[in-house]
Amino acid sequence: MQGLPEIRIRFPDWIAGFVDFDRVYPDDEARMRVAVELARENVVRATGGPFGAAVFDTGSGRLAAVGVNLVVPHNNAILHAEIVAFMMAQTRLGSYSLASPGLPPHELHTSCEPCAMCLGAVLWSGVRRVVSAATRDDAHRIDFDEGPVFAASYDYLRARGISFRHEVLREEGRDVLRLYRDSAERIIYNP
Amino acid sequence: MQGLPEIRIRFPDWIAGFVDFDRVYPDDEARMRVAVELARENVVRATGGPFGAAVFDTGSGRLAAVGVNLVVPHNNAILHAEIVAFMMAQTRLGSYSLASPGLPPHELHTSCEPCAMCLGAVLWSGVRRVVSAATRDDAHRIDFDEGPVFAASYDYLRARGISFRHEVLREEGRDVLRLYRDSAERIIYNP
Repeated sequence: MQGLPEIRIRFPDWIAGFVDFDRVYPDDEARMRVAVELARENVVRATGGPFGAAVFDTGSGRLAAVGVNLVVPHNNAILHAEIVAFMMAQTRLGSYSLASPGLPPHELHTSCEPCAMCLGAVLWSGVRRVVSAATRDDAHRIDFDEGPVFAASYDYLRARGISFRHEVLREEGRDVLRLYRDSAERIIYNP
Repeated sequence: MQGLPEIRIRFPDWIAGFVDFDRVYPDDEARMRVAVELARENVVRATGGPFGAAVFDTGSGRLAAVGVNLVVPHNNAILHAEIVAFMMAQTRLGSYSLASPGLPPHELHTSCEPCAMCLGAVLWSGVRRVVSAATRDDAHRIDFDEGPVFAASYDYLRARGISFRHEVLREEGRDVLRLYRDSAERIIYNP
């Protein structure tokens, strides 16, 4: 055991090839494809769990950040794809909130509905909209617990101005979960 | 804006003076005092929000990790005290779960009841017990939102074997929130 460790979060090398900050992603399907392809590649490369996320500037359709699940390689239970994407967006934009004055509206696209931790993080992140692919039930079906998320949780966030769209490219998101279930690298943490 | 940033989480220099990994903290009050003193010092030194946390080996009473709120200095909405403590504990112990086979039971002491994100993180962290000082209402009184946390959220975690004790050194925890409210450095993010 070390004393006071510095915690360093590094993206797998392959991520750079999936990120084009100049490209315009015109609609939800194009944006979600980024999140789902990140999830799939994370399984194929065995660099983490079957989850990907991307933060977009809602108006311009440009990427602000991406994230993949890095829990196992980093020995860090917090590093879900959404959390990694929020951290990267805030680091790039130099603000602890994507809703800070002067910043345009941002939105999160995630390959699976957020767990309780990530849904809480949505509120602090400053994104105004969340789009998801696979559902909570899809995650349960491969034994991922999503934590204490209730209909009231979504109501709470909606009351604070955050909107949600579910099941965009759900099949594709679910396919990645199945790929992971069938892969040799499968580790379900906290089953 | 940078390309793909590495995210580095560093503890303020003063933290080292508050951490003694060899000392035995015999009971909840002694353990909570660590969390509350970290919270207070974080306000006094103006290195973040008025929240502190500590992870202990429940049986031995020794510290596994500490955390303070680092949201504003790191431009990172995720870095609540509990999250930082979990990350540090998992980094030091080299495991993404403090409930991994071979590890003794661990518990979290936090100067204020966890927000929705941190309560979700409790489930993934592997701690078996959570002790808190100031209450959700105390945080609301200085305009901190705690997010979608319900009685059912606690029930969900209890059903998974996590126990809770509230209001240990509540006055002391609340005093730190008041100190922050009255300080010049006060920034309430996402009010």
